[in-house]
Amino acid sequence: MGDLKRVAILGSTGSIGCQTLEVINAQPERFRVVGLAAGRNQRLLQEQVAQYRPQLAAFGTSRELLTGVTSVSLEEMAGHPDVDIVVVATSGELGLAPTLAAARAGKQIALANKEVLVMAGELVMAAARQSKAHILPVDSEHSAIWQCLHGETQPPERIILTASGGPFYGFTLEKLRTVTVEQALEHPSWRMGRKVTIDSATLMNKGLEVIEAHWLFNIPIDSIDVVIHPQSIVHSMVEFVDGSLKAQLSHPDMRLPIQYALSFPQRLANPHIKRLAWNRPRALTFEAPDMAAFPCLSLAVAAGRRGGSYPAVLSGADEAAVALFLAGRIRFTGIATLVERVLDEHRSISQPSLEEIFEAARRAGERVTTLAEVVPS
Amino acid sequence: MGDLKRVAILGSTGSIGCQTLEVINAQPERFRVVGLAAGRNQRLLQEQVAQYRPQLAAFGTSRELLTGVTSVSLEEMAGHPDVDIVVVATSGELGLAPTLAAARAGKQIALANKEVLVMAGELVMAAARQSKAHILPVDSEHSAIWQCLHGETQPPERIILTASGGPFYGFTLEKLRTVTVEQALEHPSWRMGRKVTIDSATLMNKGLEVIEAHWLFNIPIDSIDVVIHPQSIVHSMVEFVDGSLKAQLSHPDMRLPIQYALSFPQRLANPHIKRLAWNRPRALTFEAPDMAAFPCLSLAVAAGRRGGSYPAVLSGADEAAVALFLAGRIRFTGIATLVERVLDEHRSISQPSLEEIFEAARRAGERVTTLAEVVPS
Repeated sequence: MGDLKRVAILGSTGSIGCQTLEVINAQPERFRVVGLAAGRNQRLLQEQVAQYRPQLAAFGTSRELLTGVTSVSLEEMAGHPDVDIVVVATSGELGLAPTLAAARAGKQIALANKEVLVMAGELVMAAARQSKAHILPVDSEHSAIWQCLHGETQPPERIILTASGGPFYGFTLEKLRTVTVEQALEHPSWRMGRKVTIDSATLMNKGLEVIEAHWLFNIPIDSIDVVIHPQSIVHSMVEFVDGSLKAQLSHPDMRLPIQYALSFPQRLANPHIKRLAWNRPRALTFEAPDMAAFPCLSLAVAAGRRGGSYPAVLSGADEAAVALFLAGRIRFTGIATLVERVLDEHRSISQPSLEEIFEAARRAGERVTTLAEVVPS
Repeated sequence: MGDLKRVAILGSTGSIGCQTLEVINAQPERFRVVGLAAGRNQRLLQEQVAQYRPQLAAFGTSRELLTGVTSVSLEEMAGHPDVDIVVVATSGELGLAPTLAAARAGKQIALANKEVLVMAGELVMAAARQSKAHILPVDSEHSAIWQCLHGETQPPERIILTASGGPFYGFTLEKLRTVTVEQALEHPSWRMGRKVTIDSATLMNKGLEVIEAHWLFNIPIDSIDVVIHPQSIVHSMVEFVDGSLKAQLSHPDMRLPIQYALSFPQRLANPHIKRLAWNRPRALTFEAPDMAAFPCLSLAVAAGRRGGSYPAVLSGADEAAVALFLAGRIRFTGIATLVERVLDEHRSISQPSLEEIFEAARRAGERVTTLAEVVPS
């Protein structure tokens, strides 16, 4: 209570970054922005720097673009002694090295970047354990699990990860062949970046979350079930050894998990977050995912189960395939086809180094681009 | 871990008592039955005594009926130095004095008797605070709230108490006038004693639970909402200051809250409790209760809000009215009519003593019986 926490936001101009600043604006006596970093939107970053006057800033690879603040690299910012909490809201593999730096420096890490644990879960969790860094999830699903596990003294028996199903839930594989980029970008319940929105539509996103949950909560992949819950109210559930389950619920609003990761273990009053009304009829529905129509989910779970460099290959292949779909060069269903081909070709490296992880992902992406020319999607 | 806890069960031959013994049978290395008490079913109590060989036993008011064990009163058993956990599974006001004795002796109290906190919440909670006794709820709803609050450092903003709605949910007041005792005893999801089954059908039970939750969790009556949830899967929910909710879910099975109250804060593996399957379609529905058709709910909430001796009058009047309904002497809708009349006539005593509480309840019951002759139900 009353402690001012110093926050660095990596990816401050993206969707999660901007919402993190909103959360901080509502709690000025608790959080101070001491670091801002962005990769693409220079204009917005400069506005943010002018408003928050952080001590540290980073813009892409350049160190020359900002005045009045110390320009640092993402790793320097993440491990800086004047930073208490590092919010990793970068997208893609860019978050890996700074998260590892923050973990080694024993920081509180609010992790919104899926690729970090998908690609390098073993490395990052080991570094965090060693330095007693806390990795707090910002994903709504993992935040839900975190909230449900808090206070429990025993590991869960099972995790039930909920999925909205995305815009195409209920579509057949045949119907999915003809969906457009525009349709795929229309998510029913969450506003997110383009890559993660497409991953939500293929259910790849949910598969990545299974791998992430496996690392975050140290639970076997096969103890994690995915359930379709189109209303996006129950953000996930945890089942305990006695058969009791806990679920976390709220309106779909990313500011809630962001705030929880910043304020944990305390909860802060937040009148801006809409309350769920229970005095009018409401139905929460659940069903098993259609694995045949959404093969990305099984591909991800299988890659997670195999471990080693497979998840990095999955991630690299998916990133390239989604980019090709967004560019109009492959069909929606081609994403799974290409990712599957590249995973099938891969020969795993066990306990890969960070360099080997990057290399595996890079090669997988290149291979997708090559295959896209020859494989009918 | 490994500590053998010594359990006394007050009301061992009833539904909760028998299920408590089932839970203990599954965990013989953790719990030992050291006390058994029953009021009516002497044959079953003697069987239980023969099987568990407790040190202490009580049968109604008689101390002469059991050999090989020390006959004690309920209060003596509840406060006995050789008892660690007291399970209060008696029905009606019989549980009050022994619970108070257990609270004063600093015991872990697994409380299944609603009347205790409804009638004497202030007294019992004050005694428990003073001696650091733990009162752990055995009701599925309160256990759910307890589980959701465990580990949280701040009080909840709101409690959402779920109700199955009972066998008559959706009926109009007119239709309720003609329901039979047999219909009222057919509860859709829980198997319970006759009194509590009728209270479930009138929603009085839910009103009593609101008052109970108010005392157990030290939360204002007006921060407790009742929501109809016919599937009885979500056993209650808690909303926090940040807008996040936690819910506890399971198959409706009383052995789960009983076991949790015995093993708290640990959870014990229990393969006998059926797991919820999420791989087939499931809908959990919620709606506001129909206050017009089920006036007992509002009567109870109002009595809880007024406090003093009102909840004792509510409880005494309801007990008498339910008995009259079960005896075929009044209509189902007469229960609410009579309880309301007796509450209206009552002049409250603030901070009543245990004697005043008993007296208020006794008089309310007598008044119901008198009024039943003259008031059309």
